[in-house]
Amino acid sequence: MQFIKNLKPETEARIRKSLAAQGLMQTFGVEMTLIEEGRVIMECPFSERLSQQNGYFHAGVLTSVVDSACGYAAYTLMPEDSDVLSVEFKINFMRPAKTDKIIAEGKVIQAGKNLVVCDGWVRDAGGEKILAKMLATMMVIRT
Amino acid sequence: MQFIKNLKPETEARIRKSLAAQGLMQTFGVEMTLIEEGRVIMECPFSERLSQQNGYFHAGVLTSVVDSACGYAAYTLMPEDSDVLSVEFKINFMRPAKTDKIIAEGKVIQAGKNLVVCDGWVRDAGGEKILAKMLATMMVIRT
Amino acid sequence: MQFIKNLKPETEARIRKSLAAQGLMQTFGVEMTLIEEGRVIMECPFSERLSQQNGYFHAGVLTSVVDSACGYAAYTLMPEDSDVLSVEFKINFMRPAKTDKIIAEGKVIQAGKNLVVCDGWVRDAGGEKILAKMLATMMVIRT
Amino acid sequence: MQFIKNLKPETEARIRKSLAAQGLMQTFGVEMTLIEEGRVIMECPFSERLSQQNGYFHAGVLTSVVDSACGYAAYTLMPEDSDVLSVEFKINFMRPAKTDKIIAEGKVIQAGKNLVVCDGWVRDAGGEKILAKMLATMMVIRT
Repeated sequence: MQFIKNLKPETEARIRKSLAAQGLMQTFGVEMTLIEEGRVIMECPFSERLSQQNGYFHAGVLTSVVDSACGYAAYTLMPEDSDVLSVEFKINFMRPAKTDKIIAEGKVIQAGKNLVVCDGWVRDAGGEKILAKMLATMMVIRT
Repeated sequence: MQFIKNLKPETEARIRKSLAAQGLMQTFGVEMTLIEEGRVIMECPFSERLSQQNGYFHAGVLTSVVDSACGYAAYTLMPEDSDVLSVEFKINFMRPAKTDKIIAEGKVIQAGKNLVVCDGWVRDAGGEKILAKMLATMMVIRT
Repeated sequence: MQFIKNLKPETEARIRKSLAAQGLMQTFGVEMTLIEEGRVIMECPFSERLSQQNGYFHAGVLTSVVDSACGYAAYTLMPEDSDVLSVEFKINFMRPAKTDKIIAEGKVIQAGKNLVVCDGWVRDAGGEKILAKMLATMMVIRT
Repeated sequence: MQFIKNLKPETEARIRKSLAAQGLMQTFGVEMTLIEEGRVIMECPFSERLSQQNGYFHAGVLTSVVDSACGYAAYTLMPEDSDVLSVEFKINFMRPAKTDKIIAEGKVIQAGKNLVVCDGWVRDAGGEKILAKMLATMMVIRT
């Protein structure tokens, strides 16, 4: 089930096309479950292929998915003829990611002409526990 | 080919066992090519399964591998009866990761009793171009 | 005017005593205007002594004040016989800090036994524009 | 004593003029002791006006000075008709800054057309102990 709000259909199509072209997100089995202006939610089910040494989600999976959610949140606000690039991000891991599914949310907090700053969260399957928090800088690339 | 220096064999064994237990590193096809006290190098060959939307390495792959290299670099300095956890990190991406293989290096810059601070680099297959730079905080977990 | 909520008087006293002992916060003319469990607001009036090269607030002032706000927010949740230390932080600057006063808010998002993760914001005098966003890790020091 | 290498005199003049215009750096008593292409060192003597609650240098002073050193290191590589701005940075604090003077070094690790990535270090008066490590993103502003 997907909730699409406040978004031009061509923007949604552009984002879904970009996501489908990301080999890594396919490898992870990621699904985008919300797209609206300045905000994106992506979910990723657990698999042993995505684990760290104790059998939970690897921190790299949480990071990759929430980075993508932040990037696409930024992308919803960018011109049609542009691409989005991660300049940098910082992420804190709050607790071991023992859950069947991670829910990653990216939200724009400042959209400049060239740079977009985003907050990101990774929550557990219940959506209650914060597993990780991100602060990221995205860049508009004119194509 | 692997270069092992200044390291107790049991420390190396502990680290290789941990790496083998990481589903994500197996999924990525990561190999550890250097382990010494406070420094680890890990390599990951390109595959379309690891790509972003333009067909290069996904930033999340660079991040996951260099986070692991930093974590294991920290782990070489930790007591035998401990585990290592990423508290947080920040990473800057310098250029698109167009390369056949990434080479990720983690190096301890400060080892405290509970926290270890590491510098990380991701370079291209030639080892010349810096693709990304990390600054990370690792934690000692008594097991 | 100060709003104190949900806080033991001895915790407030401990925090005010610590702030009074910070030479830098006195040099800046910082005032603490809200203390509650897990949340602190501190304000700093503009002075030419605190400027960068274009005559606005220096990024270092925003950073110092919001770091202190995050530190004290963490400190409200720590045992009486402890001190607080900044392990690390990351901050994004959104726009030039052209304002008569900065309002810095620190808020705990995860309080662990040894580490506390905080979100920080710096706003302009009107409290509307976000000038900077911080993500910080604080440490409990047993004294 | 100052060491100037590999630098056009007009670039040095531009940087010294900018530093002199920074109220905060004057308030701190900061001196620039090295400028070369892509690298700057700045020093700041201790004063009680710059302390935290235990009487050592405040983390905000270390941060402000090394941010400036990174900014000016980036500025040495920028066109004459430009200004430099901190987009964001992350800093780790390694140990209490008990020292008579801090020595902050900023070094460019990647200079792009619009963004410049810098490594920063803060050392104690002896230049041996690393007190803090920064990873920063600077922006070129066309004036």
